[in-house]
Amino acid sequence: MHVLVIYAHPDRQSFNQAIYQEVVKGLKDGGQLFDTIDLYEEAFNPVLQFSQAKKKATLDSEDSDPKMARYRQMIDSADHLIFIYPIWWYGMPAILKGFIDRVFISGYAYKYVHNIPKGLLRGKSATLIYTMDSPAFYTRLFRQSIEWRSVKRPIFYFCGIRPVKRLMFPGVRTSSEKTRKKWLRKIYLLTLRMK
Amino acid sequence: MHVLVIYAHPDRQSFNQAIYQEVVKGLKDGGQLFDTIDLYEEAFNPVLQFSQAKKKATLDSEDSDPKMARYRQMIDSADHLIFIYPIWWYGMPAILKGFIDRVFISGYAYKYVHNIPKGLLRGKSATLIYTMDSPAFYTRLFRQSIEWRSVKRPIFYFCGIRPVKRLMFPGVRTSSEKTRKKWLRKIYLLTLRMK
Repeated sequence: MHVLVIYAHPDRQSFNQAIYQEVVKGLKDGGQLFDTIDLYEEAFNPVLQFSQAKKKATLDSEDSDPKMARYRQMIDSADHLIFIYPIWWYGMPAILKGFIDRVFISGYAYKYVHNIPKGLLRGKSATLIYTMDSPAFYTRLFRQSIEWRSVKRPIFYFCGIRPVKRLMFPGVRTSSEKTRKKWLRKIYLLTLRMK
Repeated sequence: MHVLVIYAHPDRQSFNQAIYQEVVKGLKDGGQLFDTIDLYEEAFNPVLQFSQAKKKATLDSEDSDPKMARYRQMIDSADHLIFIYPIWWYGMPAILKGFIDRVFISGYAYKYVHNIPKGLLRGKSATLIYTMDSPAFYTRLFRQSIEWRSVKRPIFYFCGIRPVKRLMFPGVRTSSEKTRKKWLRKIYLLTLRMK
């Protein structure tokens, strides 16, 4: 199996960074083929641009930036995508939302056939690993994990990517060292045995 | 009433642009005080940066960019916020998500008192005007407007902004000229009589 890891956190000292390193370690030790995209490290520009002249979201015109083409090739080569990111405002950081906006365009990730959307990334699956500073009960307060429901079907299923699993780590800010170590161990074992 | 209009669309020929112009026209004709932020025009950088050294989301350290301070002053001066944007992947464009990430920081938009979040933008209300290329039935398919539920409570109510109303325009791509004119008229009258 070929895995692509897409990582989005600005702080090299963060728990997200520790997760990222653990995932890479697990994949290496497990003998997996894998690639990584570290969006902050690559100074990814998440702002989708288009105009009537070069029309939105078609492969021929937009987003024809060669960097986006390279990301699409990396996704094409992968059987499984791992996303690692913090939840901000019950959603993805802008840098990751913009990765979806710019890379998952019409004609690549999906197309409309007689007005019915068809996912073009079938055969791939995904794991989302995300952290939240707020405790788990806030998530329940806002009803059934809005941060999960706003991506699972609307983005991943829509493109034909399934199954999509999540590893959610709430209450990171107030978590103990011991708890975080346990979490990292779990992540290591998951990626070690990934197939 | 003082109104702040926050607009996010890359295309000067788009229906979003027409909405933006209609809102400005309505506010002018209605004799309102108002300011505007055109995120694409201002080449807004939506990527939140922080590190352990200059810790996340506190006013003293992050995001202390003077531009963000100016945006916060504009919000402070406003009684009502109008957001105009297209829905991409059932969420905001990255440039607008990043505006929330960078401007609505802890200590400004909210704070925690004994671990209970308290909104600091009380007394303000908001109107979201957004377009969708997909027809209205897709929204229902993904259950109760995920693009609305992922912002109303998690972002606006959280900061104490209420009421929050929405004007949603689905199926823009396939809409007729006549329908779009009717929509613009509705928007004009709404902003003309805003109080």
